[in-house]
Amino acid sequence: MALYSYFRSSASYRVRIALGLKGLAYDYRPVHLVKNEQRGDAYAAVAPSRLVPALRDGETTLTQSLAIIEYLDETHPEPPLLPRDAPGRARVRALALDVACEIHPINNLKVLRFLTQELKLSEDDKLRWIRHWVETGLDTVEQQLAGHPQTGRFCHGDTPTVADCTLVPQIFNAQRFGCRLDHVPTVMRVVDACLQLPAFQQAQPAACPDAE
Amino acid sequence: MALYSYFRSSASYRVRIALGLKGLAYDYRPVHLVKNEQRGDAYAAVAPSRLVPALRDGETTLTQSLAIIEYLDETHPEPPLLPRDAPGRARVRALALDVACEIHPINNLKVLRFLTQELKLSEDDKLRWIRHWVETGLDTVEQQLAGHPQTGRFCHGDTPTVADCTLVPQIFNAQRFGCRLDHVPTVMRVVDACLQLPAFQQAQPAACPDAE
Repeated sequence: MALYSYFRSSASYRVRIALGLKGLAYDYRPVHLVKNEQRGDAYAAVAPSRLVPALRDGETTLTQSLAIIEYLDETHPEPPLLPRDAPGRARVRALALDVACEIHPINNLKVLRFLTQELKLSEDDKLRWIRHWVETGLDTVEQQLAGHPQTGRFCHGDTPTVADCTLVPQIFNAQRFGCRLDHVPTVMRVVDACLQLPAFQQAQPAACPDAE
Repeated sequence: MALYSYFRSSASYRVRIALGLKGLAYDYRPVHLVKNEQRGDAYAAVAPSRLVPALRDGETTLTQSLAIIEYLDETHPEPPLLPRDAPGRARVRALALDVACEIHPINNLKVLRFLTQELKLSEDDKLRWIRHWVETGLDTVEQQLAGHPQTGRFCHGDTPTVADCTLVPQIFNAQRFGCRLDHVPTVMRVVDACLQLPAFQQAQPAACPDAE
């Protein structure tokens, strides 16, 4: 397998964690988002959507991090990244989507560029924007986790799921932009537990071949 | 089952379509987003995340439209809303996420409110923002669909999937804001095919009990 990844991309980071948890080896193919390599013809030939990450598995190329992780879970079922029961699976998927739909898309590189370059937002307003969505979005996640009987050492029970694969990169991102995190103690407790596992450590941006 | 929905919410609309395709009856519980009913205590007791839609099934309350649709597909497998094969499932999920992560979150009500109320963007800039993300995002979807051997009458083959459940509400939204759609002929051909089915027709905003 080959993963087209950018070290700082949250979505790439999610897939790197999942590959690590599954114990799957892969070639790392860097795509430099800040240099716009994803918009070039070479990358369009890999992924017509020009989105990063993309996973190449034999003749198949997959995009969208959560779709890739579901695929990995279906094709390499052990260890499972989703619970066995339908309500548990729905809870885990909803937690992942609380990050992947409610926080991350509003703060990714292309959106921030549009705000500053097209709409001429100041750097201060850009930071205010980022912090607002990250802090309120993580508060929503905290309310799902805190005191919920199925929250365990990780987001759902005592083994990591796709919810943890999604949460950890968002916290990396939040820290990078100086967001408040003292209002989400359960989130931070879970993230600390994740970061004790090699799969999460080895997927960190700083551990990537293209880290700067 | 009971669905907490707002007629104009794209995410609610997705779930209404899925319930219709599955032939499942449900109580419609309106939550008026413009009046901020989702932020009130009554709704917080239903869904601590305060996100709409929420589906109540027995003692379980589910949120996040795509997680709800996966749950419905697992608990009521016929007709399936995902293909049987892992690469096909990944393709369909990625198409749904191309809308649910790349287009919709950047243009939903709370984001638009922040742009105009907090960052004092003009109405013209707000429309420019919406059109940019909708038009470029749909172009990405078009490139996944056009000429792909697995695109059929619908996004993937000849029966509707979760990709179609996600695409149709986004087009409703695009039309409401006067976005260009002449650059996405395959998208529009698929949407027209969807809208010939009763499940899609009956889920339309104008057909909801809370339609204005």
